[in-house]
Amino acid sequence: MSAELSFDQWASELRTHFEEVASAALPQKQGRLETLYEAMRYAVLGGGKRVRALFVYAAGSLTGAPLSICDEAAIAVEFVHAYSLVHDDLPCMDNDVLRRGKPTCHVQFGYAEAMLSGDALQPEAFRRLTQLPIDPGQIVHLVAELALASGPQGMCGGQMIDLQSVGMKIDLATLRQMHRMKTGALIRACVRMGALCGNKDICSACLEDLTLYAERLGLAFQVVDDILDATADTSVLGKTAGKDEQANKPTYVTLLGLQKAKELAQGCAKDARECLERIEASGKVPAGATRPLAWMIDYVVDRDH
Amino acid sequence: MSAELSFDQWASELRTHFEEVASAALPQKQGRLETLYEAMRYAVLGGGKRVRALFVYAAGSLTGAPLSICDEAAIAVEFVHAYSLVHDDLPCMDNDVLRRGKPTCHVQFGYAEAMLSGDALQPEAFRRLTQLPIDPGQIVHLVAELALASGPQGMCGGQMIDLQSVGMKIDLATLRQMHRMKTGALIRACVRMGALCGNKDICSACLEDLTLYAERLGLAFQVVDDILDATADTSVLGKTAGKDEQANKPTYVTLLGLQKAKELAQGCAKDARECLERIEASGKVPAGATRPLAWMIDYVVDRDH
Repeated sequence: MSAELSFDQWASELRTHFEEVASAALPQKQGRLETLYEAMRYAVLGGGKRVRALFVYAAGSLTGAPLSICDEAAIAVEFVHAYSLVHDDLPCMDNDVLRRGKPTCHVQFGYAEAMLSGDALQPEAFRRLTQLPIDPGQIVHLVAELALASGPQGMCGGQMIDLQSVGMKIDLATLRQMHRMKTGALIRACVRMGALCGNKDICSACLEDLTLYAERLGLAFQVVDDILDATADTSVLGKTAGKDEQANKPTYVTLLGLQKAKELAQGCAKDARECLERIEASGKVPAGATRPLAWMIDYVVDRDH
Repeated sequence: MSAELSFDQWASELRTHFEEVASAALPQKQGRLETLYEAMRYAVLGGGKRVRALFVYAAGSLTGAPLSICDEAAIAVEFVHAYSLVHDDLPCMDNDVLRRGKPTCHVQFGYAEAMLSGDALQPEAFRRLTQLPIDPGQIVHLVAELALASGPQGMCGGQMIDLQSVGMKIDLATLRQMHRMKTGALIRACVRMGALCGNKDICSACLEDLTLYAERLGLAFQVVDDILDATADTSVLGKTAGKDEQANKPTYVTLLGLQKAKELAQGCAKDARECLERIEASGKVPAGATRPLAWMIDYVVDRDH
């Protein structure tokens, strides 16, 4: 990776590259499975900021992970993320009709078809990881990270708290727990998985700092999401704006106010930067290896959609 | 395992044992995750024939697998099976209200809650496998088997074909493909995973015969299911009987007629028995080690619910 590369170039190249490898990972099956694969492709491809994939690649840079290995970890986390959006958009959940500027999966393919395509993306994420040409111990770590992040102690647990909080008064501690599980856990897994794709013996202090970095950015990501939902236009956002307030959902903005929410996001960014400084200072990683992770901080906090 | 043990004793002891280990695997969480864990427990525990768990244990006997390792493989397959039933029963799918003699999960907990508890069971199945105290290469094999069986090339693919076949005239080849994927793939995985829990270097000819055994029994299992749906009472079945015909779903009974369907089940049983005879004759397994697998043939074909 050239030192002169900007974030925009880096992210843009990797997004294009990711769409290619993800597309190849989801064949357009002929015959009876055509609809299933079409719905899976629709759910995964064609848009999205690829924040989670970028986290995998950025953390992979830190440990010199081969691109082809990072690709599979990125595919796995984006499959899981895509399935969660499909299920989240269903009429029994958020009942949303617009996602990434397109009709949601169930609007396009039908309710049952959308649920099934989400169901199918989960095991496919895990299956692909098992096929990686790396040490089996590393594969087990990758599977464990992803499974923990997406299960009852992670994403699904957070979704359930979210579901039970609609229309309720909840406190900041509950909101944080919800988001730590619902979005934070998967972002944490992305960063750890990216690092694990490279040197599997990454120094434990570095992995700890990397994990803290991911946790702070996971929080910042959600806070910024809430800020954007409250302030951005639907056309810029690519999904229905103002939905949280409409649905009477508690958010960082409704609980803290806009100004305090912005300060919280900046505070998280500062903490994350300090994690990277400690990793650089450890001398355990090549000089400049934290650059993509540093870019991700600015990107997460300053994005407009 | 004592040679005098009967199938009924063996199965009954293992079912009781399985309920205990599965219950321990699903803690009754206090606090905000209580509903999620309750719904997961409801989906997994309290009934069910545990056919898939029994297949794991039976195949584990063949390779001398430790019970505690088989337990985790059995938990993983039953988690996946339970999630598939929860999603299958949802209003957008089969819209069923009765399962194992109890209200279905969404009737008990709500639509979104049921979907989420199913979603959470999947990664939890994989996560638990990664924690096994065995060779990482073996874990990767177990995860790969389960993921392949439950993904688009397995259970979810079969579900989609099923969904698209309602009210349609389909031929026997399509029906077979549907069931090979929808139920056959997971039963195949159970048997292979059970064997893999023991000697990971099981002779390849034995594994081939074991796989064929599982494929024939998977087919027999579905054929018998269709026969029971057409002939049994709801009270014996524990789920709504006659539902396939009502829903105008193609089954082995509607395509072949009752008599031919029964012959097909018996033919599968015969093939499966021959697989076990070849495995015994290979001399690669202890004498009598195929007994539980032989019991499973009679059980699958002769069961009344």
